[in-house]
Amino acid sequence: CGRVKNKVVEFPMKLKKLGRDDPRRIVHSLKVGLAVLLVSLLYYFDPLYDGLGATAMWAVLTVVVVFEFSVGATLGRGLNRILATFLAGSLGFGVHHLANLSGEKGHPILIGLFVFILAASVTFFRFFPRIKARYDYGLLIFILTFCMISVSGYRDEEILEMAHKRASTILIGAFTAVSVCVFICPVWAGDDLHNSVATNIEKLGSFLEGFGSECFKISCKGGESNKALLKGYCSVLNSKQSEESQVNFARWEPRHGRFRFRHPWKHYLKIGSLTRQCAYRIDTLNGYINSEIQTPLNIHSTKVQELCMKISSESSKALKELALAMKTMTRPTTATAHITKSRIAANSLKSFLKSPGLGGDIHLLDIIPAVTVASLLTDVVAYAEQIEKSI
Amino acid sequence: CGRVKNKVVEFPMKLKKLGRDDPRRIVHSLKVGLAVLLVSLLYYFDPLYDGLGATAMWAVLTVVVVFEFSVGATLGRGLNRILATFLAGSLGFGVHHLANLSGEKGHPILIGLFVFILAASVTFFRFFPRIKARYDYGLLIFILTFCMISVSGYRDEEILEMAHKRASTILIGAFTAVSVCVFICPVWAGDDLHNSVATNIEKLGSFLEGFGSECFKISCKGGESNKALLKGYCSVLNSKQSEESQVNFARWEPRHGRFRFRHPWKHYLKIGSLTRQCAYRIDTLNGYINSEIQTPLNIHSTKVQELCMKISSESSKALKELALAMKTMTRPTTATAHITKSRIAANSLKSFLKSPGLGGDIHLLDIIPAVTVASLLTDVVAYAEQIEKSI
Repeated sequence: CGRVKNKVVEFPMKLKKLGRDDPRRIVHSLKVGLAVLLVSLLYYFDPLYDGLGATAMWAVLTVVVVFEFSVGATLGRGLNRILATFLAGSLGFGVHHLANLSGEKGHPILIGLFVFILAASVTFFRFFPRIKARYDYGLLIFILTFCMISVSGYRDEEILEMAHKRASTILIGAFTAVSVCVFICPVWAGDDLHNSVATNIEKLGSFLEGFGSECFKISCKGGESNKALLKGYCSVLNSKQSEESQVNFARWEPRHGRFRFRHPWKHYLKIGSLTRQCAYRIDTLNGYINSEIQTPLNIHSTKVQELCMKISSESSKALKELALAMKTMTRPTTATAHITKSRIAANSLKSFLKSPGLGGDIHLLDIIPAVTVASLLTDVVAYAEQIEKSI
Repeated sequence: CGRVKNKVVEFPMKLKKLGRDDPRRIVHSLKVGLAVLLVSLLYYFDPLYDGLGATAMWAVLTVVVVFEFSVGATLGRGLNRILATFLAGSLGFGVHHLANLSGEKGHPILIGLFVFILAASVTFFRFFPRIKARYDYGLLIFILTFCMISVSGYRDEEILEMAHKRASTILIGAFTAVSVCVFICPVWAGDDLHNSVATNIEKLGSFLEGFGSECFKISCKGGESNKALLKGYCSVLNSKQSEESQVNFARWEPRHGRFRFRHPWKHYLKIGSLTRQCAYRIDTLNGYINSEIQTPLNIHSTKVQELCMKISSESSKALKELALAMKTMTRPTTATAHITKSRIAANSLKSFLKSPGLGGDIHLLDIIPAVTVASLLTDVVAYAEQIEKSI
């Protein structure tokens, strides 16, 4: 009972949080409500209703199904639905006429054969990864409309009228959904993609910023909040699929804001993948801080400490600079300098470890973690360089 | 022109490959064709058609929309659709009666208000990650059905009959889709999940198997094919989302094959996430073989070579053993022994590097990469241990 009560109390809190995290969600919900309301007005105006009749519900259906969060997704679904309906409608109509030629008995057999072949082959096409990414919904609607038109043609004599009504209601529905989506506080998938790629780079930067001090336990005043900051990079690790779908949505979008029509969206995938590879290194580094698996670091040499701090802070600055430059779409000015600095620090760390005077002072084992960390940081620097080049 | 010709020639090849990669795809396509054919028979049998009329098309629509590749996904969609239709249908019916009480003029206003509020709030609920994972489709259908029933109630006096017909056609459609999906060569999402998690562990094992020799360039006879083998782990890095959706599907599935009803599906997520963390380490290791970014390894000490080889081969054996045990659902017998061996090798590598006799012979810089590799391999061993514990 207590648990249920807790859940009931928590629920409005969660709702609030959901809205506060991204206020566009509230706006989106209101937009959907508005679009559905607009399209259900069809029922209330006599002249419109007389033309369309009960098929007006197809328009409601289209709005509900097509309306997505971002403009790109809505446009993609809308265009898919319209195109597929037209193509499948005409094909179904043709097949219906062909079947009519074969007489009363052959008609259902021929139609059944066509439906089976078409449904099976189009379903198979949906397995193509490239087709699936952009036209999956269209193929689904294609099967649907084809079956509906050709099968119901067996009964309905007014098949042409039905096809016509279906097409026009779907056009009305898709048009309503797209215009509400585009003209009232639009959410562009391209913008989202651009920002999320930049934010991911920034997250890596924040990790490296905190890493130095966390690693050598210099300042402990940050405490828990610092740890939380270091966790930020985790979402980068699994960002691949959301980036890919956003690229697919963005490709449907027309010119908007700072983006030209044929913005090189695919380029973001490249940057994203470099960012992820960098994040994998950082995840390994993170293993050294959270000593669940690894024994904690014990680096006594202050010189090594200093250089590691230097590397991580410089590469952090470079990454943050790159992220900022990407967000504002300007050329990064000082990023190259930071990267050079961190490269120099990495090299001097290497030569310091090489120096013969070291062997006597400290045990080799003591510096093994330091060496690993340094080597990983060098990796991170290399990736930061690559990321910089590709922006 | 040449490019278009190329594409046309390539297309059937791609189709063939798609089918050969996973023959279940062909079976699935034929199953969809069959289900659609079955349900369109409704049109041809007079007694059935007389009862349902033109709404029989809802059954076709349901089959096409509900039929998914795996049983879990189909069941999930089917149940979502049926439940949402019933709930929304009764709610829409109630609202229609309520609105009727308010007279001729108030009716459309009240209905419009309800439609707006419901569409907006249900759309907002769809943002909940947990609800989205399992009930997204149901909520969509809920909005849809509610709007259709309540809005068309303004015109149709036979709203009860319409609701009844819609419910029964959707039941028929969902039932057809689910039975074809379950009884003809079923594809269980749970099986797929189980196999893919085990295969991922195996892939890491194969990488480590090849890593030792590749790293020290001992045998080059494998050449390209060996490199390809080493690339196998890449798909593990981004496996999170597909595993999560498979878990969601699997939870809809009834008892089947080797799996009990309440199989701990969520446990796979844990194993999967450990596997991924291990894969991140391996990605870092891989950076050392492919010298695009990193300078290639130069490890001269044969002792270090030997130990690294030992660690990687033993942990490879352990991982492969674990994967096999998981696939056959037996207790792994020798995996613990292999892990212990690789732990011992890792420890002796550590103490070897610690030994004071080392400093004179070789430069410290020469062994830095070796140390890094060794430390990463130790990480891998630690993860292998964790994976072993959680199976």
